[in-house]
Amino acid sequence: MLNLASETAPGWVENALRERDAILLDHAHCEKKAAGAAVNLLFRYPQHAFLQAPLAELAREELEHFERLLRTLEERKIPFARQRPSAYGGRLHRLVREREPERLLDTLLVCGLIEARSCERLKLLAEAWPDPGLATLYRDLLASEARHHGLYVELAQQLAPVDEVRARLAALAVREAEILTEPAPAVRLHSGTA
Amino acid sequence: MLNLASETAPGWVENALRERDAILLDHAHCEKKAAGAAVNLLFRYPQHAFLQAPLAELAREELEHFERLLRTLEERKIPFARQRPSAYGGRLHRLVREREPERLLDTLLVCGLIEARSCERLKLLAEAWPDPGLATLYRDLLASEARHHGLYVELAQQLAPVDEVRARLAALAVREAEILTEPAPAVRLHSGTA
Repeated sequence: MLNLASETAPGWVENALRERDAILLDHAHCEKKAAGAAVNLLFRYPQHAFLQAPLAELAREELEHFERLLRTLEERKIPFARQRPSAYGGRLHRLVREREPERLLDTLLVCGLIEARSCERLKLLAEAWPDPGLATLYRDLLASEARHHGLYVELAQQLAPVDEVRARLAALAVREAEILTEPAPAVRLHSGTA
Repeated sequence: MLNLASETAPGWVENALRERDAILLDHAHCEKKAAGAAVNLLFRYPQHAFLQAPLAELAREELEHFERLLRTLEERKIPFARQRPSAYGGRLHRLVREREPERLLDTLLVCGLIEARSCERLKLLAEAWPDPGLATLYRDLLASEARHHGLYVELAQQLAPVDEVRARLAALAVREAEILTEPAPAVRLHSGTA
């Protein structure tokens, strides 16, 4: 259902649990970036009316998640601050082709894959995180990520025949899995596992 | 309460009622821009934790208004599309000083003045618009605009002494009123009335 080409290695969860504060802060930034990506699409493609209402609603949900993460940080006395992000999002967005409509198609699929990977990893955290409050939060959020993944793929299907969208999604998923085999300097929600 | 230095001339409402479709479409774009402005601040100032939760919530509300306007357009068979905006927002943002913290202070106050003017004009539309459904929509939204005006001014007060914020707000309000005396090529929510 998530169209991912790999499963996260168990070592990632172990590392994440050792760096809980860093993961929570990164997660807050990720929710904000997810909202920002959707809002950017609203402005970049005013001519595509079909994107406007669904992506506005998605951005609202991501902002609400961001606010929940801010409250979680506050409860744990973790200051909200700048943090070095993983290379993942930038690497993935570089796979987007330059010409339209391929650019929009790829952007939607890349956003969809990020949501899928978030969903997969939040599930791992929900199962492993010893704090029951956070496990509940993760379970709530992973359901939204799965929904958002489906929405991005549906929107992409308005731009090209379903076979073409499926083939491109599978190709991007292979690259996404490759990016996650690269070593990462710090553990993040989307850091590599090597 | 709204800190505006002028009242909209009655001619503006008359023009707006003659160009209802254009006003509704512009209003949709304005709600999206209001959300975009708040989201931009979240990314430009990650070091200012005090901005994050309030502006995320504000952006969510603006996105919800945008979605309501999209439904209103759809009900009236007005296609959502690009539209030439009024010069107002761009002119106002050019008043923002370049150095920090003045840049952030001015940006917050300019956003606050735009909310205040929106509130004033939505009230005029709510009173004059013959469609009761739309009059209700405008009344709902103008209450939020007034709240958002207050929020932006409060946030600005975290950056400078209250007297300094009040003085700068008054100066910017004078310029805002001047901008609205300039002739406009088409009627918009924030178009000039000359």
